[in-house]
Parts: sequence; structure tokens; C-alpha cells
Amino acid sequence: MTDPFVVIGGDAAGLSAASKLKRERPDRDVIVFEKGTWVSYAQCGMPYYVKGEVDSLRDLLSLTPEAVADRGIDLRRRHEVVGVNVADRTVTVEGESGRFERPYGDLLVATGAHAVADPIAGSDLTGAFTIHSMDAAAALRAFLTPPSESDGGGDGDGGDGGDDGGRTAIPDVEYVDAERVERYAAMEPPTSAAIVGGGYVGVEMAEALSAHDLDVHLFQRPDRLLPEFGDAVGETVAATLADHDVDVRTGTEVERLAGTDRVEAVVTADERVPVDLALIGIGVRPNAGIVDGTPIERGASGAIATDEYGRTTADRVFAAGDCAEMRHAVTGEPDWVPLGLTANRAGRAIGNTVAGTPTPVGEIAGTAAVKAFEQECGRTGIIDHGRAREAGFDPVSETVTAGSRSGYYPGAAETTVTLTADRETGRLLGGSIVGTDRAAIRIDTLATALESDLTVPELERLDLAYAPPFSPVWDPVLVAAKVLNGRLPDAE
Amino acid sequence: MTDPFVVIGGDAAGLSAASKLKRERPDRDVIVFEKGTWVSYAQCGMPYYVKGEVDSLRDLLSLTPEAVADRGIDLRRRHEVVGVNVADRTVTVEGESGRFERPYGDLLVATGAHAVADPIAGSDLTGAFTIHSMDAAAALRAFLTPPSESDGGGDGDGGDGGDDGGRTAIPDVEYVDAERVERYAAMEPPTSAAIVGGGYVGVEMAEALSAHDLDVHLFQRPDRLLPEFGDAVGETVAATLADHDVDVRTGTEVERLAGTDRVEAVVTADERVPVDLALIGIGVRPNAGIVDGTPIERGASGAIATDEYGRTTADRVFAAGDCAEMRHAVTGEPDWVPLGLTANRAGRAIGNTVAGTPTPVGEIAGTAAVKAFEQECGRTGIIDHGRAREAGFDPVSETVTAGSRSGYYPGAAETTVTLTADRETGRLLGGSIVGTDRAAIRIDTLATALESDLTVPELERLDLAYAPPFSPVWDPVLVAAKVLNGRLPDAE
Repeated sequence: MTDPFVVIGGDAAGLSAASKLKRERPDRDVIVFEKGTWVSYAQCGMPYYVKGEVDSLRDLLSLTPEAVADRGIDLRRRHEVVGVNVADRTVTVEGESGRFERPYGDLLVATGAHAVADPIAGSDLTGAFTIHSMDAAAALRAFLTPPSESDGGGDGDGGDGGDDGGRTAIPDVEYVDAERVERYAAMEPPTSAAIVGGGYVGVEMAEALSAHDLDVHLFQRPDRLLPEFGDAVGETVAATLADHDVDVRTGTEVERLAGTDRVEAVVTADERVPVDLALIGIGVRPNAGIVDGTPIERGASGAIATDEYGRTTADRVFAAGDCAEMRHAVTGEPDWVPLGLTANRAGRAIGNTVAGTPTPVGEIAGTAAVKAFEQECGRTGIIDHGRAREAGFDPVSETVTAGSRSGYYPGAAETTVTLTADRETGRLLGGSIVGTDRAAIRIDTLATALESDLTVPELERLDLAYAPPFSPVWDPVLVAAKVLNGRLPDAE
Repeated sequence: MTDPFVVIGGDAAGLSAASKLKRERPDRDVIVFEKGTWVSYAQCGMPYYVKGEVDSLRDLLSLTPEAVADRGIDLRRRHEVVGVNVADRTVTVEGESGRFERPYGDLLVATGAHAVADPIAGSDLTGAFTIHSMDAAAALRAFLTPPSESDGGGDGDGGDGGDDGGRTAIPDVEYVDAERVERYAAMEPPTSAAIVGGGYVGVEMAEALSAHDLDVHLFQRPDRLLPEFGDAVGETVAATLADHDVDVRTGTEVERLAGTDRVEAVVTADERVPVDLALIGIGVRPNAGIVDGTPIERGASGAIATDEYGRTTADRVFAAGDCAEMRHAVTGEPDWVPLGLTANRAGRAIGNTVAGTPTPVGEIAGTAAVKAFEQECGRTGIIDHGRAREAGFDPVSETVTAGSRSGYYPGAAETTVTLTADRETGRLLGGSIVGTDRAAIRIDTLATALESDLTVPELERLDLAYAPPFSPVWDPVLVAAKVLNGRLPDAE
């Protein structure tokens, strides 16, 4: 084995890189070390598995370990890389058979991120979850599913069927943490839940848990839900959650989870709210500790610093995905926004670069979408004025509400768009959108515009599609551009 | 009255310009001459009025004549401008009280377009329609509505109610052509229809007429429906129309409509198909004859030539909307693509320019969307290779079908994207999309990309939104870019 491509981490970035290299250069040895048992899973799908809209954990796997092997990739699960020696070009690996060294020709660090739970005392109680691993999702769904529904009844058409005979069989993948799942399956299902954190995980889980008829209390320290999406989205989503009987408590910090072995209550400065399930979604941090003490540098965010090709500060060492920084399309500065497309795209580009075709990993705009019951939300770029000022801009914003279709066409829905621009240059810096009719997908228009460095007047003049069933003459995005344009010094 | 702004034509372009100028410069006199009775109506909504999804013709009015007057605009309906004298800066007008001259300070020609029907012999028979005027839409709906449904029953919740008491009252606007409507209302409703032309009017009307349980035969001379949308869209739409029992006959030229007074049949080279309604949707032509014999020049398309501010070749004379050429975003050359947003945008910009703030009218990309039953279709830019070569490009295209959402998320639908690029530079030239799940609105991403001169590799690297309910990790647009990128000489 000569010049192998070694990948640390078997999820989106790692397996995209491994697959792309293997496709372009089948002769090259590719080894992926994954410390856990799960590979290539759709983390963004977990709330919908917990909710019950996705039948099987298996559905969330993009690639099974067998499919990875079929691509000629040497996948080693339950192998943790515990050290990187860039001088020798080796990694130190701990597997079931002990510790060993492995040389690499090129190395990709794709170790992902982990959910933060530590600041919440009691996060280790039974009944407290983060939703950042497949095992946790499996255990949570087992906990939520009443025994009567788990043996074939309420679980959709059962997917592959076969092993669908009892509550413990819900997570129908052989390498799930069965002990944990069975423990939760044996417990009385919860009737009330606290969600700690009102970011996208919190909002998606509010919908998921409500589907199980739980009383859901959502605690959010900031004054708004989804703060990254701007005030207008946060307000709309809070109202929508309330409409669906979620008890939304913004501006409320959770001090701790109370209970002896099991979660019994959430404690805030003012109150003790009894719950028997707690879901902590207060953020994630990069898994970047592996590079400490090596010449591979971390950036200001704590994630691994990379250049436009995903290269780290060490020769022939790349980093990608949730553990790596990327360049932001608006600021041009390194930033850390862990999202699925970014990981896939960067991994694929690095695979290509390692194969001999230098391919930029692309920039990030922080484009994201989230569903909150019937509301579709999107955001991109820089919306927040503090953040814009830090980046050297003089921000100006407008928020407008306009129809999603021609007013006379059935189904037209209010769509609220916020745009932020730089006052002097008119450059579009960011935007958000919320509404019930095809709202989220419209954020891609704004993402494309800001990655193309369009100004607001240029955005206003875009020749977008008009057809009564899909968009009014002036799409809400264009209406917002018109209004914001009027606020700019050189207003047309 | 000094230095008046005179507008010829009271629809989208004309009234947008008039309104914008009046808002910016309330002191300026603004006169709009409209030869008909209708102003500011949503032509794109007519198929949905005929279908019955839109209750009232009134719903299609963006502005009533009264609302126009409230803006301080001197609107003269039933006044036709029959001559323009640019040397004297006057127009010659024919109104009910005779012919008169009127001076202008600035002039806007916004005379629109007309539906072509002449090439089809028999287009003047009773029962033959084009769907390019409100009176025609009113007459057609009266014809389609059985007497039993017209007095309050099957017509939705009746909109304004009031005058909803009989079949002739369906078109509830006082200045509708009542004689024509009543004539059709008195006739036996049709049971079968021929649609001549398979462009967007033909496709929308196939859906509209099917809703009235007619046997619908659609005749299209080219081999594909919606030729401007490319082959993939055309094929999908033809299959969908067939699924809905529309008899689709592509590659079939209609020789004439047969009948003595009323339409009785459609005659092709091979066949005579009995029908009692014919809808002709074979295209439109600009109403530009008014400028012949003046220094105001027409372009190669026959529409009025304009510059980036909508100025014609005569001093202080502008043209906008369906009668005017615009610059194409991809070719940089003058082109004629009569669409609603273009008219509104150009009119508004001209109003601003006349008010003293020079404002570009913007470019056109030919972005359009159309609904064909459950299919949502979009197109932008240059898809056709012959057209691309004429413009000096070396075109290469790919068509891919990908999911609209994560595969595991309910409701994911096949979405087919075609992209055309220039082989050497990789520049995106155009694209189309078709699918049932939020497909059409995705065309705006492509429109924004090509108006920003993005290359296909740049498109592939865009940071678009990913959330399982709305888009897979790689949106269909990105999948298409990836595949097309692989065909480019400098493929990454």
C-alpha cells in the first residue's frame, strides 16, 4: 500500500472525499477511520425520524457500510484516530485490536462536531437527550413510542418489515445501541417535554415532539427563536409554535435539569416546570481537538483553519465538514457554519483535488432552511447589524410582507422577507424569509445573489419568474429589494 | 398644462410609469390614453378565470379606473392614439368626441401586443377565441358555464356577490362587452374543444377547459409542447396532459377551423376533428404600427427598439412592455420577450427616469413559469442550441432528474433540470425545470445565476439551502450543475 488517502471520520465530508477520489483514481488506496458505528447518515433527518414521518433509521443512511466497501473504500468502524504526526505522515489509531500507526499520503480531518450539553446541569440524567447521534435518535423514538404502537400498528407501513415485531425493533439497524434503546423502550412514554434552546434543532424538535401529543415547553435564552434568521422569522415562528400549543418561553435561561435518576423538571430563575423528557439543543462545537499539539492550526472559531482548497496549515492535510472553517462569501473571512451541503461539497472538492484536479471547496453564505410546522423559513448571509458592522459594513435593513402568488390566485400566502445591505455600496449582505407557500426555497435566489456580489438595485432588476400560481408579478424578494433600494443613498 | 407625460396604453407598463412619475413628481401632468375600456388587468390570470379558480373578472384588475384617477393620473379610456409627431412633440388622438392633437413633454409608447389568429382560417367563426383580452375571457367563461351553475351555485362564494344573479352577470365589471357575453351565455355550452398551439397559453387553457369537463384536443405544430422550455419539460407536460385525458397532438398543423357560422371542426392534413369550441394560442405580436413613418425605430423583432433606459430613437420618447425590445442578459443583444414583470419593471424605471432619476429598465432573461395541472415548469435564458450558436456560443447541455427533497422525506418528487452552458467559458446560458414539488420557483436561482454571469462550476459551488422537507443536500439545480460541469473541458 503506497501513498494512501486517509480520512478521519465516516460521515458527509469524509465519505464524499473518499468516494470522489476512488471514482477518479480507482488505483489509490483510501482508508476511512470512523470511531463510531454509524457512517454516512442524514443528521438533518433525525427530527423527522423522531416525529415519525420517516419510518426507519435505515432510511437516514445515505450509504451503508457495505455500499462504502463496494466503492473500494477501506472503511474501519470503531477505529478512533487519537493522534496525527505530520512530520512522519502517520496517524495513530485505536481500534478493537489495540493501538497502531498508519502512514498517509494525504490526510483529511473530517471529525464533525458534537452537541453541547455540559452547560446544562443534569444533562446526564435519564430522559435528557441531545439529538446529534443516531443512537440518541433511536433511543428517543423508542421512548416516545407507546408499546401498543410499536408492534406493527402505528409505525407506517414498516419499511423493510422483517424485524418490526416489537418496540425494541424500531431502530432496525443491527449496529444501533440496542441496550440504550431497550432501556428507553421499557420505560413509560413521556407526557411532557422541555426543549432547551430555540435554534433550528429546538424548533424542529418542538414539531416532532408535539406530534407525539406531549406538552412541549421550549426555553430560549435569547429574546427570539432562530436568532440567526432575524427578528421577523423568529417572531413568526414563535407565534406559529404557540398556535400549535407549544409553550414558548423566550428570554428564559434554563439553570438546570432536576431529578434523581430521571429528568423530573426544568429549573429556571423563576420557576420549576415538571417534565419527563428534556431535549437539549443549545449548539454544537467542532471536534478539532485531534489537531492540538500539531502544526495543524485552528481558527478563531475553534474549528480547523483551511484555505480555498480545504488545505490546513500542514502539508497534504485537509479538513472539511463540521470540524473546519470555510471562507464566508460576504465577509471574505474564515467562518464556521457547520451545515450539510458544506460538508458534502468540500469533501467532494477535496477528493477531486487529491485526485489531481485542484477544486475549490467554495464559500459559505450560511444559507439554511428550517420547517416550523407550516412555516417555511430560510436565511442567508449576514442579517444581523452587529455582525455586519464587525465585518466593516454599514448595514441597513428592511422587512416587507408580500403575497406568495398573485392576490387573486387561490393559496396566496403572506411571505415576509428581510434584506440587509451595505448602505454605501448597496451590496446585498443577507436576507431571510418566512411563509407557508414555497417560502424557504426562495432563499436560494438571495443566496445566489449575494454570492454573486449583487447590489440591491441589481437584485430589484432581476428577471425572475412570474406565473399566478407560483409568484406575483413582483416576487416578495423583489418587493423587499424595491423597498430597501428606496432607503439607499443613491436610491433609484 | 406644461410638459405633460403622455402614455399610450393603460396596462402594466403604461400605468407603472404613470404611477411612479406621479408619486415622485406630483406636480407633473400625466395623461394616459387607452384605446379600450380595460386598464391594468392581469392577463396571466385569465386562464384561471376561465377555469373558475378566480371568481370574478374584477379580481384580475390591479387597479380600477377610479384608483388610477385617485393617483392623479388623467386616464382617458376609449381614446386611441393614431399618430405621433416627434418634431412637434404631439400625439394625435381619436376619442368619442372626435380627433384632436395633444402635446407631450415626454412620451411613453406602451401599446402592448395582440394575439395572432389570422393564419388560422376560420378564426372569426363564433366559438373561436384568443385569450388576450378581458372581453374574450368573459365571453369564453359565459360560454362554458351551464345556465344551471350561473345563478349563484357553482361559482365559488360569489366574490362581491351583488350582481351574481344570472349567467350574463358572470363578468361583473360594468364595462365588459355585454353584448358578446350575452350572446355566448345564450348558447348551449360546448362539450369539446380544440386548442391550437401548445405554448404556455395552450397548456394553461388545456387545464382550464378540462376543468369544465370538455373533451380537449391540443394541436401543436412543433414536435414538442412548450418549445421555449426545452425538450424535457415539453415531454413531461405532454405526458401529464395525456394523463388528464387531453388529446395531445404534437407535430400536427391545423389547416383551418371549419363551420358555417359556428366552429364545427378542426381540420388538419389528415383529419377533421369535430369540436364546438376553438382556442387559438399561437403567439402574439407587438402593437408597434403607431411608430411607422416616425423617427421611432423598430428592431429586428418588429418591436420598438429601446436603450437601457427604455429610450427609443426619438428624443424624449420611451417604449416599454409588450411593444418594446429589451436587452437580453445572456446575449447582450436586443430581444423581444413580452412578459408581465418586464413590462412592470420597465414602466416603473421609466417613470423614475422621467422624474429625474435615470434608472435602467434592466435586462431580460426570458424567465417564465407555467403550471400544467400538477406540473410546475420554469425556464430562463437560452436553452436551445441553435439559438445559442446564433449568439456566438458553443452550447453544451445536460438534463438530470433528481429528488425535490431528501429521499427519505415524504413528498419528495422527481425534478428534471436542463442546463445549457457555453463549452469554452463554462458560462451558464440557460436552464429549465419541471416537477410537482416547488419546481417552478427554483428557476429563479438559475435566472439569478445567469444574470450574474456565473459559470457552471460557480453554480455548482453555490451555498444553497438544505433542509429535508424542502431540498435534498444537493438541490436538483446543483446536481444538474455537477453533471454538466463534468462535460466541460476544464471539468473539476
